[in-house]
Amino acid sequence: MDENDLRKLLEDIKEQKVNVDRGVELLKDLPFKDLGYAMIDNHREIRVGYPEVIYCAGKTVKQVRGIVEFMLTKENNILGTRANEEMYQAVKELCPCARYNKEARTITIRKKEQKETESYIAIVTAGTSDIPVAEEAFETARIFDNKVEKVFDAGVAGIHRLFHKMDIIRQAKVIIVIAGMEGALASVVGGLVDKPVIAVPTSVGYGANFGGVTALLSMLNSCASGVSVVNIDNGFGAAYLASIINKL
Amino acid sequence: MDENDLRKLLEDIKEQKVNVDRGVELLKDLPFKDLGYAMIDNHREIRVGYPEVIYCAGKTVKQVRGIVEFMLTKENNILGTRANEEMYQAVKELCPCARYNKEARTITIRKKEQKETESYIAIVTAGTSDIPVAEEAFETARIFDNKVEKVFDAGVAGIHRLFHKMDIIRQAKVIIVIAGMEGALASVVGGLVDKPVIAVPTSVGYGANFGGVTALLSMLNSCASGVSVVNIDNGFGAAYLASIINKL
Amino acid sequence: MDENDLRKLLEDIKEQKVNVDRGVELLKDLPFKDLGYAMIDNHREIRVGYPEVIYCAGKTVKQVRGIVEFMLTKENNILGTRANEEMYQAVKELCPCARYNKEARTITIRKKEQKETESYIAIVTAGTSDIPVAEEAFETARIFDNKVEKVFDAGVAGIHRLFHKMDIIRQAKVIIVIAGMEGALASVVGGLVDKPVIAVPTSVGYGANFGGVTALLSMLNSCASGVSVVNIDNGFGAAYLASIINKL
Amino acid sequence: MDENDLRKLLEDIKEQKVNVDRGVELLKDLPFKDLGYAMIDNHREIRVGYPEVIYCAGKTVKQVRGIVEFMLTKENNILGTRANEEMYQAVKELCPCARYNKEARTITIRKKEQKETESYIAIVTAGTSDIPVAEEAFETARIFDNKVEKVFDAGVAGIHRLFHKMDIIRQAKVIIVIAGMEGALASVVGGLVDKPVIAVPTSVGYGANFGGVTALLSMLNSCASGVSVVNIDNGFGAAYLASIINKL
Amino acid sequence: MDENDLRKLLEDIKEQKVNVDRGVELLKDLPFKDLGYAMIDNHREIRVGYPEVIYCAGKTVKQVRGIVEFMLTKENNILGTRANEEMYQAVKELCPCARYNKEARTITIRKKEQKETESYIAIVTAGTSDIPVAEEAFETARIFDNKVEKVFDAGVAGIHRLFHKMDIIRQAKVIIVIAGMEGALASVVGGLVDKPVIAVPTSVGYGANFGGVTALLSMLNSCASGVSVVNIDNGFGAAYLASIINKL
Amino acid sequence: MDENDLRKLLEDIKEQKVNVDRGVELLKDLPFKDLGYAMIDNHREIRVGYPEVIYCAGKTVKQVRGIVEFMLTKENNILGTRANEEMYQAVKELCPCARYNKEARTITIRKKEQKETESYIAIVTAGTSDIPVAEEAFETARIFDNKVEKVFDAGVAGIHRLFHKMDIIRQAKVIIVIAGMEGALASVVGGLVDKPVIAVPTSVGYGANFGGVTALLSMLNSCASGVSVVNIDNGFGAAYLASIINKL
Amino acid sequence: MDENDLRKLLEDIKEQKVNVDRGVELLKDLPFKDLGYAMIDNHREIRVGYPEVIYCAGKTVKQVRGIVEFMLTKENNILGTRANEEMYQAVKELCPCARYNKEARTITIRKKEQKETESYIAIVTAGTSDIPVAEEAFETARIFDNKVEKVFDAGVAGIHRLFHKMDIIRQAKVIIVIAGMEGALASVVGGLVDKPVIAVPTSVGYGANFGGVTALLSMLNSCASGVSVVNIDNGFGAAYLASIINKL
Amino acid sequence: MDENDLRKLLEDIKEQKVNVDRGVELLKDLPFKDLGYAMIDNHREIRVGYPEVIYCAGKTVKQVRGIVEFMLTKENNILGTRANEEMYQAVKELCPCARYNKEARTITIRKKEQKETESYIAIVTAGTSDIPVAEEAFETARIFDNKVEKVFDAGVAGIHRLFHKMDIIRQAKVIIVIAGMEGALASVVGGLVDKPVIAVPTSVGYGANFGGVTALLSMLNSCASGVSVVNIDNGFGAAYLASIINKL
Repeated sequence: MDENDLRKLLEDIKEQKVNVDRGVELLKDLPFKDLGYAMIDNHREIRVGYPEVIYCAGKTVKQVRGIVEFMLTKENNILGTRANEEMYQAVKELCPCARYNKEARTITIRKKEQKETESYIAIVTAGTSDIPVAEEAFETARIFDNKVEKVFDAGVAGIHRLFHKMDIIRQAKVIIVIAGMEGALASVVGGLVDKPVIAVPTSVGYGANFGGVTALLSMLNSCASGVSVVNIDNGFGAAYLASIINKL
Repeated sequence: MDENDLRKLLEDIKEQKVNVDRGVELLKDLPFKDLGYAMIDNHREIRVGYPEVIYCAGKTVKQVRGIVEFMLTKENNILGTRANEEMYQAVKELCPCARYNKEARTITIRKKEQKETESYIAIVTAGTSDIPVAEEAFETARIFDNKVEKVFDAGVAGIHRLFHKMDIIRQAKVIIVIAGMEGALASVVGGLVDKPVIAVPTSVGYGANFGGVTALLSMLNSCASGVSVVNIDNGFGAAYLASIINKL
Repeated sequence: MDENDLRKLLEDIKEQKVNVDRGVELLKDLPFKDLGYAMIDNHREIRVGYPEVIYCAGKTVKQVRGIVEFMLTKENNILGTRANEEMYQAVKELCPCARYNKEARTITIRKKEQKETESYIAIVTAGTSDIPVAEEAFETARIFDNKVEKVFDAGVAGIHRLFHKMDIIRQAKVIIVIAGMEGALASVVGGLVDKPVIAVPTSVGYGANFGGVTALLSMLNSCASGVSVVNIDNGFGAAYLASIINKL
Repeated sequence: MDENDLRKLLEDIKEQKVNVDRGVELLKDLPFKDLGYAMIDNHREIRVGYPEVIYCAGKTVKQVRGIVEFMLTKENNILGTRANEEMYQAVKELCPCARYNKEARTITIRKKEQKETESYIAIVTAGTSDIPVAEEAFETARIFDNKVEKVFDAGVAGIHRLFHKMDIIRQAKVIIVIAGMEGALASVVGGLVDKPVIAVPTSVGYGANFGGVTALLSMLNSCASGVSVVNIDNGFGAAYLASIINKL
Repeated sequence: MDENDLRKLLEDIKEQKVNVDRGVELLKDLPFKDLGYAMIDNHREIRVGYPEVIYCAGKTVKQVRGIVEFMLTKENNILGTRANEEMYQAVKELCPCARYNKEARTITIRKKEQKETESYIAIVTAGTSDIPVAEEAFETARIFDNKVEKVFDAGVAGIHRLFHKMDIIRQAKVIIVIAGMEGALASVVGGLVDKPVIAVPTSVGYGANFGGVTALLSMLNSCASGVSVVNIDNGFGAAYLASIINKL
Repeated sequence: MDENDLRKLLEDIKEQKVNVDRGVELLKDLPFKDLGYAMIDNHREIRVGYPEVIYCAGKTVKQVRGIVEFMLTKENNILGTRANEEMYQAVKELCPCARYNKEARTITIRKKEQKETESYIAIVTAGTSDIPVAEEAFETARIFDNKVEKVFDAGVAGIHRLFHKMDIIRQAKVIIVIAGMEGALASVVGGLVDKPVIAVPTSVGYGANFGGVTALLSMLNSCASGVSVVNIDNGFGAAYLASIINKL
Repeated sequence: MDENDLRKLLEDIKEQKVNVDRGVELLKDLPFKDLGYAMIDNHREIRVGYPEVIYCAGKTVKQVRGIVEFMLTKENNILGTRANEEMYQAVKELCPCARYNKEARTITIRKKEQKETESYIAIVTAGTSDIPVAEEAFETARIFDNKVEKVFDAGVAGIHRLFHKMDIIRQAKVIIVIAGMEGALASVVGGLVDKPVIAVPTSVGYGANFGGVTALLSMLNSCASGVSVVNIDNGFGAAYLASIINKL
Repeated sequence: MDENDLRKLLEDIKEQKVNVDRGVELLKDLPFKDLGYAMIDNHREIRVGYPEVIYCAGKTVKQVRGIVEFMLTKENNILGTRANEEMYQAVKELCPCARYNKEARTITIRKKEQKETESYIAIVTAGTSDIPVAEEAFETARIFDNKVEKVFDAGVAGIHRLFHKMDIIRQAKVIIVIAGMEGALASVVGGLVDKPVIAVPTSVGYGANFGGVTALLSMLNSCASGVSVVNIDNGFGAAYLASIINKL
């Protein structure tokens, strides 16, 4: 329930299209719903414009199922990240239309359709191994109704591949650059565009890569301006932010 | 055997209610019992007011069993932390009343009942994934006879959930705040209460979370005063300290 | 010279308002000007929409002066960051209208006025000690003609101060949150708004703060979505990005 | 103004001992006072029981002076930490009774006397070089009216020195252990007492001490229970928390 | 073949007790034997007084077997460390008298008996979980014919247990202290004895223990003099050095 | 297709030995081939003299197979690194002549034979456990047609073994030194030769080795000049560079 | 005295052009000269082809002077790195022809002229602030008689500047890439050339740059092959190695 | 007062050579003397065989002076480490025979002469810049009456210099190896001797040396056995331990 939905409901009540009992029913969990192990933030969509997302890592299958079960009583789209297949099976029992992207490890349930944005988010990866993070970003951007263009495997070791795709990248409203190893792609893209660049370091690499720390540090120290950074492998976070910017 | 038990025994001997041989029997292991692989600190309860706790990680099932076997000859409550199910099965053979909390990974054996404290410890978690650490804290606080209130999933991303529970938190005598990721909850709670806050960073998170280091550092640098910190995932340690404070 | 200026010049040439020699003169340094110790990127404003900025740290006074001297032959506004007073004195000799913000350590020269944006950037700091970084952000945002609102010393240890200012923060188009110590402010603000939050960790703190690393990690692990991060003390970078977003 | 002061004022107004204008005057800055560069948290004493403390590091002399100047209009005791002599001189001009502890780098101003606690806080240091941190703790504990006992230079390299002082330590209500190098003192004390131990790692040491990190880690991993930790060299934080516990 | 063996052989040749062909046979591999994947250092016993030890980690079972096979052609005792059971089975086929200590993960083969030292090495552990490292040290010290005394589970959390065993520790010629967590035991023992203390940090612990780094740093910063440190979990290295010292 | 092949093709077209359609066929993928998940850099061999290598880690079996399938349409030798056996099986189905080096984890396919270099690369390891990295280097050097000499297990603990092999090492044109633990071999070799030394730290070791970081740092700080370093366990990278140098 | 000089001398002695006493005089310090505080390695030029270089940091002025004084008795060129002006003054007294490059902090003394190489070393920097390291590399390369081409301030934020200079870079025999911040330039250059690239991370940057660590890690993880790395700010080491390669 | 002195005193009292009042005078400070800021451990010489040493860093001049003043009332030799010249001047006023070694930063006062040991300690450094640490070790070894041999500047970059001095090193009873940069010397020496090697990493180096951490890690991971390590730059600690071993 976002701000428009709420206004609509109150107007419906005022105009007696909806009776008060139904209104109470719809609003009583407004601030949050306490499940004991989780307090679901129903107020979030009004406050920040997006429904709460389920970060599944560290939760039990039972907890994930319980949270989805409650969420399904509301009219929001649902996104679960870092979900395993067992969680997906449990969710699917509740809602057969749930979809699982194995590479992205996301569960998505679409309860309401909204118009896709006209401007788009470009998702660029340095290598093939960065694709799982890119897919998490993709699923996130899509569930929030963004148009997306993908440019995969465009790392700086063969920089002409990047230049070949620069038109697609330049025309995006916001760009997500996903790279592991030394993460140089963020700086190179940042130096070539006049749009916000959200850099996602990935844990792709080995040795002195330290599970993505090198790419993270590299991106934080980018000599190109206009680049900001999210946590290692955080495709979700990048796409969430990109979506906010894309809709400004 | 704590200080009161000891005094009682000596008075009983003085008044000839207990004979000397029985006294020797009861006191001969007073300082510690040497099992070869472990020297059990029987003197601890007199010295620091609490019986020794078995930290099961890194011990063999046989060693855990042996230690519990000896401890059962004394009249103390027993707490084993970081215990796996195999250890629990071995202990249960010795003592059918042993209880296992799977989430907390604790084994508890209650040999003597004591009055529950009137004041209580509040255990607050930022997220659902922090619950296992909270459960370890809960079991620890309970075996030491503390009253406990739980507030789970009250992280700062939806801060109104925290405010909704502030009354419970403010009326505690001491507060345990358990959070992973960036651990901001400790600072926010610390800025709102006039009670000691014991912060427990958890290893919940990924990437630049470094297994809880980020939450740990965050809590150590809390801009709110009155906050101190224990090791990552150390629910036991936090509750042990909270129990000392709760009983002051 | 940005894309509009370039188009204008070429049309003037086409329409013979400007002769070819003058065109050559204006365009010959277009890609870059090589000073030996520096290749000034004149093409940058066309490519990414902003003139090059002088990062003064690690440069000699003579080099800074030389770069400014060349830049003054173009019609761009000039920004020097991390500049010391000696650099400022050298620049002032070249251009008496140069301004120095001592706290921010910035030199600014305004060669052309542009309309201020209608939407604004909110710059929020956790403490008084974070102000120098905020001032660098402020000067950067201003030289790029953004409207700015400042909210200083609104850290979470006294969270009602933040709530008091939430209206100003919520109505911004993009928010810069600047905090040292544990950097919790970024998460709290991120959980309360539906706008992009650019978090700037500062080196304010001591001990296990590690010169801002704790705040950096904390912000990267923010439990609130919609938050991205720039380098420690990088007020310039945050404002540069905020300016791009503010003008989308 | 703490909770009692507030109740008193409102009752005085009710009983017409204080007129409404005076009440407005006294209460108008209640939540906080905005100085532009600082929002002073006047509500803090009601909320958490202690007045706000001035962390002087990173502030200008002018800012410190301005904050003290405003604070002096209230009836609270004032504590400035990490203050240099120049700050002290500026404060002394405002308030001749201000006192400076050079070793502790604290400025203290006593505006109201309160009864000293009956129970005491023990401050124990491992070495002579840890004394500056101990002095900061001492000044903090004293301005909050705690009785304090000092035991200095009792490190484990000559453990009989510690045992000689154990009576003083054991009878405290709460113990602050301050140690650099390997910080072993916290574990040894923690194993000998039944009181809360607040461990303060110091930056005393060299090489692989890493400015106190070794002592910090050591204390966080203490094999003795009942020990919690604050930031490196944070004598203030330890004493603040100790004071809360001492007054429970 | 140590220096004495070599001298004996040459004298036997001089006195024609051994013919030259046999001498060539015995000496031809003297500097080393090249197996392709390993160059076995036969000269080592002459040069440094001890035969080469097989560090089995990272070697294939086949390689370990091949190295032992060659070594068995010499008259040296053999020690393999960090060996798994599969390696032991392969070695046992070559030499039925090979012995495997599962806790220590050592393979030992005794080809010549030598007189045990009169002075002894004390091996002290802080906890039960440190025993595997202690057993590696024990096997190493024994294969080099040292007398050894074990004191296990004498950590500082119950320091009277340590004092009870101080006589055994003080009378050793050299002391190995093995501890995980915060490693405080090394400092406490170091402050109580006038013998060399070799500290072995172990990876026992969790969270901010970082796999033994905390204990390592703690021991390196010991406030007690006379303490030196070997790598984390390096029971072998400590005992090797202790053996050199014990035989001085 | 390297620069010579390209020149040859164009001359053949000029001399009408090859018709234009065939030319188009051969050249249309020249810059790169976009497979969706990978953009294969066909231009690489012209630009940098070597065909693209497949870094298999983090790719799916299907992706590796797809890339090889496309590459086989060109006349280049193929090298896959960090490949598992499943990948090899998939590749073997496409090309029965594919070879798998299990220790090195490399897949190699030889499509064209070239003359072996006259000068050689020496590959030196400190221990037996470093051999897998050495084998990766060996396979890489060989697929690029370099003559190679191996010297394995020549670490400094038995330095006479190294001296015995110094002639082989000194006569190489470039030397790869592969070592784990403290990596001292790189410095010792560097001090004895007048050829470029490429040092490869390996993750061989434990405890404070930190997965090869110690060897890496050690090599970067080598007191001998003429030593440069590649990433931990990067046998491929060292041999690639050695090959460039060997062919200068 | 290099290998040719030595051969010449011995032939002169054989042919009685030089008498034996003179020969002894010239050769007696051949292996090294012991000055008490320094053993000067005169054998080095024969062994590794280059005279010993004086690393001045951490030496007293007196020690530097003493070492130069002895070296001047030989006919070698002399290079002192990390030298301050006071050292230079002391050296100049001994040898008026000594030259000091203030930016590079090098002292050079040319005692014999040799033919400059025909092939050249390219020294490329990302920014103006990297020039001091480049100058150290330049002086080192020059004292060893290499031809050098400089390309300064060609960082990836304005990548067309780099492309403009690619011809100079591509035609070098070996390329030194010097960059701070995120060090992306090494990867971009590495992907464009078929020559050895020696990457030098610099300490240029701030915050999460950690004094050059980010650039170091970035370069070690370069996705482009053919790149190896030396220590942070080690312009000397890079040029020393480049010189070896340039002369192969 | 060591154990012999104590025994002598008690016998003198028994035989009435010393009266009881004098005995009380001599013994009353036996366990320790409390100066308020320092508890001087007089019992130490009896307990561990060596008088307490003054670690001057972090102490005020006044504190150092006060401690020395008290110590002078006993008949022990005195050693102050990490002392600056101002401290020395203060001590010299109390005791004109005090000696200051500027390089070592030690103050020494010799109150009783003892026989020098027959066996000796070898102190070996890798470079000239390591000499200050070596001098601290030298002064420490000498005040405890050890014979010492110095071998300076024998690093592995010119390994023949080390071999030239191997006789001196091999005949020592215990060897201290002092090295910065990559610290390889410890491993090379460790592989060549059959004596205990105490390795001291120094902070000599730059960049990825991290103030001695690289040398420290390198030494902890030494592939040669028989090597143990003390803190960075801890010449005192190494010599203290060497002295214990040298006197076994």
